[in-house]
Amino acid sequence: MRTIAIGLLGAGNVGGGVLRILEENRDAIERRLAARLKVHAVAVRDVGRQRHVDVPIDLITDDASAVVADEEVRVVVELIGGIEPARTLVLDALRRGKHVVTANKALLATHGRELFAEAAKHRVNLHFEGAVAGGIPILRTLREGLASDRIVGVRAIVNGTSNYILDSMTRAGLDYDAALSQAQRAGYAEADPALDVGGQDAAQKLALMALLAFGLRVDPIQIPTEGITRVRPFDIAAARELGYVVKSLAVARQTDDGLVLGVHPAFVPQDSILAGVHGAFNAVLVESQALGPSLYFGRGAGMMPTGMAVVSDLVEVCRAVLSPTEGPPPQAFAVIHDAAPLSVDDETCENYLCMHVPNLPGILGRVATCLGRHQVSIKTLKQDPQGVGEPVDMIIRTESVRERNLQAALAEIDSLPDVLAPTHRFRICPPDPLD
Amino acid sequence: MRTIAIGLLGAGNVGGGVLRILEENRDAIERRLAARLKVHAVAVRDVGRQRHVDVPIDLITDDASAVVADEEVRVVVELIGGIEPARTLVLDALRRGKHVVTANKALLATHGRELFAEAAKHRVNLHFEGAVAGGIPILRTLREGLASDRIVGVRAIVNGTSNYILDSMTRAGLDYDAALSQAQRAGYAEADPALDVGGQDAAQKLALMALLAFGLRVDPIQIPTEGITRVRPFDIAAARELGYVVKSLAVARQTDDGLVLGVHPAFVPQDSILAGVHGAFNAVLVESQALGPSLYFGRGAGMMPTGMAVVSDLVEVCRAVLSPTEGPPPQAFAVIHDAAPLSVDDETCENYLCMHVPNLPGILGRVATCLGRHQVSIKTLKQDPQGVGEPVDMIIRTESVRERNLQAALAEIDSLPDVLAPTHRFRICPPDPLD
Repeated sequence: MRTIAIGLLGAGNVGGGVLRILEENRDAIERRLAARLKVHAVAVRDVGRQRHVDVPIDLITDDASAVVADEEVRVVVELIGGIEPARTLVLDALRRGKHVVTANKALLATHGRELFAEAAKHRVNLHFEGAVAGGIPILRTLREGLASDRIVGVRAIVNGTSNYILDSMTRAGLDYDAALSQAQRAGYAEADPALDVGGQDAAQKLALMALLAFGLRVDPIQIPTEGITRVRPFDIAAARELGYVVKSLAVARQTDDGLVLGVHPAFVPQDSILAGVHGAFNAVLVESQALGPSLYFGRGAGMMPTGMAVVSDLVEVCRAVLSPTEGPPPQAFAVIHDAAPLSVDDETCENYLCMHVPNLPGILGRVATCLGRHQVSIKTLKQDPQGVGEPVDMIIRTESVRERNLQAALAEIDSLPDVLAPTHRFRICPPDPLD
Repeated sequence: MRTIAIGLLGAGNVGGGVLRILEENRDAIERRLAARLKVHAVAVRDVGRQRHVDVPIDLITDDASAVVADEEVRVVVELIGGIEPARTLVLDALRRGKHVVTANKALLATHGRELFAEAAKHRVNLHFEGAVAGGIPILRTLREGLASDRIVGVRAIVNGTSNYILDSMTRAGLDYDAALSQAQRAGYAEADPALDVGGQDAAQKLALMALLAFGLRVDPIQIPTEGITRVRPFDIAAARELGYVVKSLAVARQTDDGLVLGVHPAFVPQDSILAGVHGAFNAVLVESQALGPSLYFGRGAGMMPTGMAVVSDLVEVCRAVLSPTEGPPPQAFAVIHDAAPLSVDDETCENYLCMHVPNLPGILGRVATCLGRHQVSIKTLKQDPQGVGEPVDMIIRTESVRERNLQAALAEIDSLPDVLAPTHRFRICPPDPLD
């Protein structure tokens, strides 16, 4: 049986998962591949550090460049994360004609052009299933399973940290800070959770999905992105009363004019499948022309799920090593175009608005007049009874309105002297198309 | 741009979908492939017949063998269905070194050994994503996405007809016959629905999933299979009262001793995702070692969803044509073993039993004694109040019991002189592991 030597860069959480899966599923993998995957070297930053998984001491090195340069290594698995030195190491591996597997969404979302060009030039594979939605094979699905379809939209829960926090707020009634602490204790949030709860992580994943779904390269910085830090227990309770659950969504929609992208918390209907995505699970709902809606659901993070995605990429790459192609390895798209996301100004949806105002006669009139002036129609309005002059949360559900109009109305309302705090606004999603 | 000539065998429902997708998604496919897929010939049984889709008259022929033999045709798409002449034509295509895409589950489930051997021998691809769960890329997921994982179980709704009928019974309160008629009118059931409602269709799909999930070849005839024809509105109402929905499931579970397989209607918890699979949708819940549970959900039948799966296979195969491998094309498993499903005698689960008995003193005692003698513990028991001596439906929910014991008890109970009809029995599924 042939043996293929793997160079592993990084032995943290996901790296530990990769090592465990290669060990525990050795037989299953060999039965599939008729070849042995052998970890030839493991590069780490600190050789002496305690790890999740035992790494044979003779494989460990702190010289990542040497692992990449090692003649025996056929496939490099990059799990260092971040931009440098990951970028330099991956480029070096590709230039040496080595296949690369990575789960580094930040690297691919920001330096994808350079890396994919290098891979194509040297006729090697660059796979990254682990970069989006952990173990759910969503990139493969967009690349292969739906390769003949025209994908028109994606609505996804791809940040496990945000979903875990919102889920704790929804089901255990915690406030944001308590939910974040719990997520950190449970290992679902980093000590610095900014990129997760701020939505940037989801925006990078959305950019990678757009690449494989539409063949469009988008800079994640350009994706309108809103985090979950301003979600309050009050909003979650209000959502529940209206029949909704608050979820952080990454959304892509292809229109005749271009691509609409966004990351934001939204109200999803209580009986929709996305509402049933709990804890750190992820789910991706794809809408395509011929197939219609389809959904992919599973663990979106963690050492074993993400490790599994990485090792499955490794199996695919090793199939290419065992049975090399004459030409360059196939790409998801022959041609990738650069694209800037469309402005969301012309998007329309229903909205939940929560305004913090004193309970005084005339306020409602002023707010309603302002909304009306901007063509924002009110579907329902509710405020809890309070003493006169007491601050009150006024909840308005709008009809489907144009974003441009809503923003203009909110800017005006928030500058009214009576309004005590910026209006809380959440988009309301239509029902799942899976019924 | 290179052009790859396709020979299409069959232009019925799915064939029509394939032609429409190749036409409507031409640009999207060309952007992915950097090649043109051209339908070179379409073989049909009756050249004059009216079709779902316009087929250019100069492409149509009734000579399928000539299409397969045509030197220009690089890929043959077999959508005739059934065993012959499909088998002979596919074998002929493979022997001529042509790649084959098919959606013919009956053919693959029964003649897979011969066909895959021939494909390997001639170093060509034989793809069949459309054969299971329509447009859901479940075979690709089992073959590639989870290639590094040890799959331990599958629980799936893969027969759209049965699901449509059960869903109509559940949601519209129809009885079986009315639901079947409605399904037939809606195009979700054949004039002769026997293979769908009898479970054999699901058993064939289960056999194909087992092939890609476990590398085990099972004869679908050997899979314990139970249809939905005996499901009554009474059972559905009883399920609802207990918090369940009746669904027809295809189930696979790998144990240390071997593979447990089965197709049967079962009670699934109302709040589980599988309970939310409506109409002709399909869903496959996979349980694997590293990833844990993952779910794949979408349209499981119909001209466009299944056509999409076929054309996506075609895109994959054409990638191989454009960039041929030096060795044979990679297989899901290097080695396939034959396997017979384990006896279900040692399986354990909770059950719903419905016994039709006269409302007489002592009956309950006799039934309970008999169950107890076979170690079948009762969790709950309920019977509607009736006049003395009137026939009554006694509903028993068992604790988790061994199948062998339950069967022995039921055989004895059904032979009691008091019991008026065979006991209705459904397995009760545990909650989804997706929470």
